[in-house]
Amino acid sequence: MTQATLDFYFDYSSPYGYLASERIEAVAARHNRTLRWHPILLGAIFKLTGQQPLTEAPLKGDYAIKDFNRSARQFGINYQHPSPFPIGSIAACRATIWIRENDNDTVCAKQPAFIHSVFRAFYVEGKDITDATVLMQLAADLDIDPDSLAQGIGTPTIKDALRQDNEAAIARGVFGSPMFIADDEPFWGHDRIEQLDRWLETGGW
Amino acid sequence: MTQATLDFYFDYSSPYGYLASERIEAVAARHNRTLRWHPILLGAIFKLTGQQPLTEAPLKGDYAIKDFNRSARQFGINYQHPSPFPIGSIAACRATIWIRENDNDTVCAKQPAFIHSVFRAFYVEGKDITDATVLMQLAADLDIDPDSLAQGIGTPTIKDALRQDNEAAIARGVFGSPMFIADDEPFWGHDRIEQLDRWLETGGW
Repeated sequence: MTQATLDFYFDYSSPYGYLASERIEAVAARHNRTLRWHPILLGAIFKLTGQQPLTEAPLKGDYAIKDFNRSARQFGINYQHPSPFPIGSIAACRATIWIRENDNDTVCAKQPAFIHSVFRAFYVEGKDITDATVLMQLAADLDIDPDSLAQGIGTPTIKDALRQDNEAAIARGVFGSPMFIADDEPFWGHDRIEQLDRWLETGGW
Repeated sequence: MTQATLDFYFDYSSPYGYLASERIEAVAARHNRTLRWHPILLGAIFKLTGQQPLTEAPLKGDYAIKDFNRSARQFGINYQHPSPFPIGSIAACRATIWIRENDNDTVCAKQPAFIHSVFRAFYVEGKDITDATVLMQLAADLDIDPDSLAQGIGTPTIKDALRQDNEAAIARGVFGSPMFIADDEPFWGHDRIEQLDRWLETGGW
């Protein structure tokens, strides 16, 4: 029998997506779920839903930055609010998808490690993850060939794959980051991990 | 020594505000906090922050209605998503403020009971809480004189008090419903009650 899945949608430019990335593997493991990582581009989705980046809203923006830090401290996760913020995460998304799509299974298995590297480079080390050379260095550190990666993310195949992933996410009702879907049940927000965990444990209510 | 406070801001047209109203007294009691209830008008605040009612956003709106029900079930709270929704809660806000401002201390002490009545009338019984006669009946059921209430909510004093309350809320950074403020620390969302509870227990982190 195939193991049940847990889908995790995130934008690299989402602090709550980063916080969730540090906690979601434990939830998946606890409930014997295969975790599927889906980098998405919220910008395209926000155009559809009329939302704006959280930190740019009056009042809400100040609270949000305070809360990123407070939530990180609560769960013992390193966090340094990056500047500039928000950023365009298209290069990082394409790199992540190239790693998934790569024929070499050894590389494909490194996808979660690469995702953590990119998130931590941005939210802990203050690196510019819009810069392809930064992404190549992160790949090289994981023994993923940086030149193949650099070549790969420029191909129509990878560009189309990201566009299709984003459209598929929208079709499933994804409108924010992080979102989790288990057995077609969607959960939105880092602050819903406990609810998701309880849902998986009880089978829902 | 005066007991420390816990400020609870809500809009009657906010389902998460309603859910929070059913749980927040237990949190305040557990930490020996005087709970202060603040009805606000999110419409005026949304104009400032550029937000739109949650249920009217594409994708997000459908999720929101699903989540109101799921969250209510999780905590064993009765919930029937009202129609029409959202509504203007100005009459209900003014009535709540009139009860607080009333010279008669016996009436003033009934404010929490009245708030629960209004919320449950809307989210459980499907009553039209924009209708002053409905509000008067809810007041009468609590032995609050409905005629004095009806007269009171039309006065400039009460209208000004609501306007001032709303401005004071904005000045404290309130931008959503529910919001909680304890010792100047703000928490936004029904799904942050656990975090608030832990903050009050530990003194923060």
